Amino acid sequence: MVDLTQLMENEVFMAFASYATIVLSKMMFMSTATAFYRLTRKAFANPEDCTGSGKGENAKKYLRTDDRVERVRRAHLNDLENIVPFLGIGLLYSLSGPDLSMALLHFRLFVGSRIYHTIAYLTPLPQPNRALSFFLGYAVTISMAYRLLRSKLYL
Amino acid sequence: MVDLTQLMENEVFMAFASYATIVLSKMMFMSTATAFYRLTRKAFANPEDCTGSGKGENAKKYLRTDDRVERVRRAHLNDLENIVPFLGIGLLYSLSGPDLSMALLHFRLFVGSRIYHTIAYLTPLPQPNRALSFFLGYAVTISMAYRLLRSKLYL
Amino acid sequence: MVDLTQLMENEVFMAFASYATIVLSKMMFMSTATAFYRLTRKAFANPEDCTGSGKGENAKKYLRTDDRVERVRRAHLNDLENIVPFLGIGLLYSLSGPDLSMALLHFRLFVGSRIYHTIAYLTPLPQPNRALSFFLGYAVTISMAYRLLRSKLYL
Repeated sequence: MVDLTQLMENEVFMAFASYATIVLSKMMFMSTATAFYRLTRKAFANPEDCTGSGKGENAKKYLRTDDRVERVRRAHLNDLENIVPFLGIGLLYSLSGPDLSMALLHFRLFVGSRIYHTIAYLTPLPQPNRALSFFLGYAVTISMAYRLLRSKLYL
Repeated sequence: MVDLTQLMENEVFMAFASYATIVLSKMMFMSTATAFYRLTRKAFANPEDCTGSGKGENAKKYLRTDDRVERVRRAHLNDLENIVPFLGIGLLYSLSGPDLSMALLHFRLFVGSRIYHTIAYLTPLPQPNRALSFFLGYAVTISMAYRLLRSKLYL
Repeated sequence: MVDLTQLMENEVFMAFASYATIVLSKMMFMSTATAFYRLTRKAFANPEDCTGSGKGENAKKYLRTDDRVERVRRAHLNDLENIVPFLGIGLLYSLSGPDLSMALLHFRLFVGSRIYHTIAYLTPLPQPNRALSFFLGYAVTISMAYRLLRSKLYL
């Protein structure tokens, strides 16, 4: 059996592992936030979820959408749409031997921008708070993709 | 050229590869289920998809939502929201040198919980079947994230 | 510190890195397309996004859905649903030591099918253009999953 721990002795890879785990944990928190708002605001998507809030016909009125729930769901989907490229491109970028300080800069900016994006979406803060945090994370991912393709393109 | 097959000789990594492939294949099945219900229930999202079911004005009535289709789509999105963190955190966890039996326990519980979640969502089974299977998969991923960050944090 | 650049000297892995980066960049373009259509068609999902288009009560009329915006969003979600399995299964497949020409065939067909899928969805082209490009990408991913599980299954 091969000792894979050598991969984890690479500092860039360890940094990527840490930041990726943090940003994924943040994304998972959105599921809890959705469940919280669905329960406190009694706004469910499935008939079987309403039975804790009422019986029979009375329960069906909780099959509805709620602004707060929909807002969390949009923030969650936006996370998915942006964290998936970061995971894929970031993993490959980490393996391509970048400079440690440059890699840390990318990871920190991305994770910071996504945390700020969530705060701006859920508060909500006035625009362009959310738009700017979105574009910062976007630009960081594009920058990693550019460096990766420039140095390692193989088609 | 480097022989990467050594990575695949690591038992934890092979186990992760197998379970990740299985749970991703299960997720892909949801696309087929959506297509199946859209076709059998004639409920489409795009005008160009309706032409097989009717002509002209007659076709437009199939541009509608259907409870069954929306249920499959919600199950699919829930899969995405939970399998993406499992893939990212699970991959890094596998590379961090965990105990084989502990890793297998995590992978098996996660894949089992997602398969049961799909059954509970599509049947549908009464709550809390779906909620418990969701939280089991969630807890497994958080447990891997915790072990990873505790042993390898690098910020 | 370990020199990870050896991983990037593996031709299959480099090819995977290149195609994965390209298809993820294409997916990220969908966010820009959504923003473009939301701004030009003045169709927003959040009250705070409308303030650039009008004041007070006047702004609220822009809180609406638009066919064009919804079409881009469906194409984006379909990308997510299909590119996530490709990333996970493709990464593990790349590490399992496949034949280079076979791996390139898989990657090229997948990336080509997703680009054509986006064109077919956004134009829109008549069916079965979109359906066939979807199933081509789907079949490529299943083929990689099958090869991976056949050679490396460990449960």
